Amino acid sequence: MDYPKPIKDLIDGYLALPGIGKKTAERLALFTFSEMQDEDVKRLGEAIINVKNNLYRCPICHNISTTEASCEVCSDEGRNKDIIMVVETIKDVFIMEKMQEYKGLYHVLDGAINFAGGVGVDDINIDSLINRVKEGKVKELIIATNATTEGETTARYIKALLEEYDVFISRIAHGLPFGGDISYADEMTLLKAIEGRRQY
Amino acid sequence: MDYPKPIKDLIDGYLALPGIGKKTAERLALFTFSEMQDEDVKRLGEAIINVKNNLYRCPICHNISTTEASCEVCSDEGRNKDIIMVVETIKDVFIMEKMQEYKGLYHVLDGAINFAGGVGVDDINIDSLINRVKEGKVKELIIATNATTEGETTARYIKALLEEYDVFISRIAHGLPFGGDISYADEMTLLKAIEGRRQY
Repeated sequence: MDYPKPIKDLIDGYLALPGIGKKTAERLALFTFSEMQDEDVKRLGEAIINVKNNLYRCPICHNISTTEASCEVCSDEGRNKDIIMVVETIKDVFIMEKMQEYKGLYHVLDGAINFAGGVGVDDINIDSLINRVKEGKVKELIIATNATTEGETTARYIKALLEEYDVFISRIAHGLPFGGDISYADEMTLLKAIEGRRQY
Repeated sequence: MDYPKPIKDLIDGYLALPGIGKKTAERLALFTFSEMQDEDVKRLGEAIINVKNNLYRCPICHNISTTEASCEVCSDEGRNKDIIMVVETIKDVFIMEKMQEYKGLYHVLDGAINFAGGVGVDDINIDSLINRVKEGKVKELIIATNATTEGETTARYIKALLEEYDVFISRIAHGLPFGGDISYADEMTLLKAIEGRRQY
């Protein structure tokens, strides 16, 4: 006797999530079936489907957008359009926004260059960043990739590509401990890192 | 700026899963939106909803059933209906079935008595077990709850309740290391534990 198909399908489904192996997927699937309330299960299933149906990527900066047009930040007339902060992930945008200090725009790379890990320069949103700079309206680019080898490689690559353009490129200061991930830094560390940014 | 509602809803949804805290739920939600393929997301969402819509609990033994009627085991004419193995979870049924040795029926308690943890005798499927024994057709009850304090408490409670009935009650041998969980035992250990069962 084997698990019925709906359980097997759910195990496969959970396996698509990061950090979830076969044992955990099996445990989650059985928990979903036998211990969760019907309405909680329905809510989770619908939330998963809705997240792809009701949200979009901003065509300008690749941040989350609630419409197919540009995101809340890009379409905010009060933001300073002279400056773009380049971050690795959508989450980093929300972490930066929590500080309520930065008033420029963003550019979400969706990762960082990692040749060993199979992430090349064409796998992240670098082309669209270069195009935004080419338009000539941007005066400063703050590169806020992580203080990891991948983040540094990415920062250096972007800097090299934009050498010929008339844009001031800065890098957030290494206030973060080496090897650290922006997602885990506290607000003060991030603030100091932004204040202490130097020409790159 | 805060996460848009579909992301917040998904974070809440993932929080309902066991062992998933706020940080992980946030990470999973953003991963689901920004890194998973549309079809994988759809498949996961639908699998979650389907697991509750297309599967049932067996009205006799509380195992998973693909119909509203009795499950694959209870409705199998080839199984020995004189003997019931009492287990804590649905998963334990599938683990036992993997051995292809046991040919009796099951009874899934859906947990074990844990007074400190707020799980009392009425919170698990003991009443329906007593009713099955009362019908008088069952000759042996193998109590295969975990070798934990909760599993032992549950075993002793069931034994005490059934003292007056004409049924042979056995307990799987403690071949499992003390504190061990049936889910992690290998097949030989389980086999020896069943063979070495003694009157309880």
